[in-house]
Amino acid sequence: MATNHIDFWFTMGSSYSYLSVMRLLEVERSAGIRFDWRPFHLLVILQEMKHVPFADKPAKSAYMWRDIERRAVMYGIPASLPAPYPAKQSVMANRVAILGMRQGWGKEFVHAAYRRWLQLGQETGSEPNLSESLRDIGQDPQSVLALANSSETEAALMAATDIARELGIFGSPTFVVGRELFWGDDRLEDAISWHKHGCVKLTR
Amino acid sequence: MATNHIDFWFTMGSSYSYLSVMRLLEVERSAGIRFDWRPFHLLVILQEMKHVPFADKPAKSAYMWRDIERRAVMYGIPASLPAPYPAKQSVMANRVAILGMRQGWGKEFVHAAYRRWLQLGQETGSEPNLSESLRDIGQDPQSVLALANSSETEAALMAATDIARELGIFGSPTFVVGRELFWGDDRLEDAISWHKHGCVKLTR
Repeated sequence: MATNHIDFWFTMGSSYSYLSVMRLLEVERSAGIRFDWRPFHLLVILQEMKHVPFADKPAKSAYMWRDIERRAVMYGIPASLPAPYPAKQSVMANRVAILGMRQGWGKEFVHAAYRRWLQLGQETGSEPNLSESLRDIGQDPQSVLALANSSETEAALMAATDIARELGIFGSPTFVVGRELFWGDDRLEDAISWHKHGCVKLTR
Repeated sequence: MATNHIDFWFTMGSSYSYLSVMRLLEVERSAGIRFDWRPFHLLVILQEMKHVPFADKPAKSAYMWRDIERRAVMYGIPASLPAPYPAKQSVMANRVAILGMRQGWGKEFVHAAYRRWLQLGQETGSEPNLSESLRDIGQDPQSVLALANSSETEAALMAATDIARELGIFGSPTFVVGRELFWGDDRLEDAISWHKHGCVKLTR
């Protein structure tokens, strides 16, 4: 039943993914499991599904922020909500993230960008979030953003998105253990349980 | 912080609500909390939100059944999936449910109808599910269905749906504790925690 890791598929424009991004390093340590961080561009898949995002659904949107807030408190994660939403240029953050994963500073960038978005109110994928997050982690915004805008990075992001679609992914975050999908930060423990035991165990 | 009960808002066409329906009596007993079962007609609210249901989203739909299956196993609840979906006449099941809540046999009917739907593959709200579920609990289908089709029952269901909308409810099940909404069977423990402590506590 065991695979040697869990894939953590996420898109930078996802509000709920903040919770996973902020707690994953600690979870990785305490559970002794390696997570592969896999940025993709969910928006393409949502558009194919004719998905109407939270932004057009006031009740659902209000609930989303309240739910994130309650769970952030539960995990001891700071959050200043609501944050700017939707993030209109999330594709740029996804490009930087996938470039960073290849160059070895991806997780740090994702952390920094989410912190600025959900704690400081700087819309992810737009300025000043992009450049400031890169500066936070010691990367040069000008050269990184030039590379992020290259056709090669764009192609890499679309290739990752194609893989996500083929896996049946339709939301962020999604944890993949072998052939099993677990959608939502609230399914992280289920994914870990599947990784360890091959089933979802009751832990409450 | 304590209210004296938790409202359990649900709609009979909701697949995920099966998990709550099947475990709520036991949860009520072990947690010592009263749950008020509040049927409403979610479809009206979803249509107002221009919500595209699972049925038009193959990846999400496949995930839904797998997720329900894994969690049913976790809770020790039998399930034969996928079940017929969407339930085209779920409004009829909702009318019978709200009538039953007024007459004192509502929970039993909801249990029976969900069992027939998710265990025996009989679409909820349609025949033979409606009549067989009523017979299962010792109710006469002919007289109950006549009352369920009355304008009074229809008005009661719409009034309940109006209250749900005003509360900000957009999905089923939704647990309401005071002014806090908890959407999804997977938020039942959060709702209980809020009821007891006024916050969502980490229990894993």
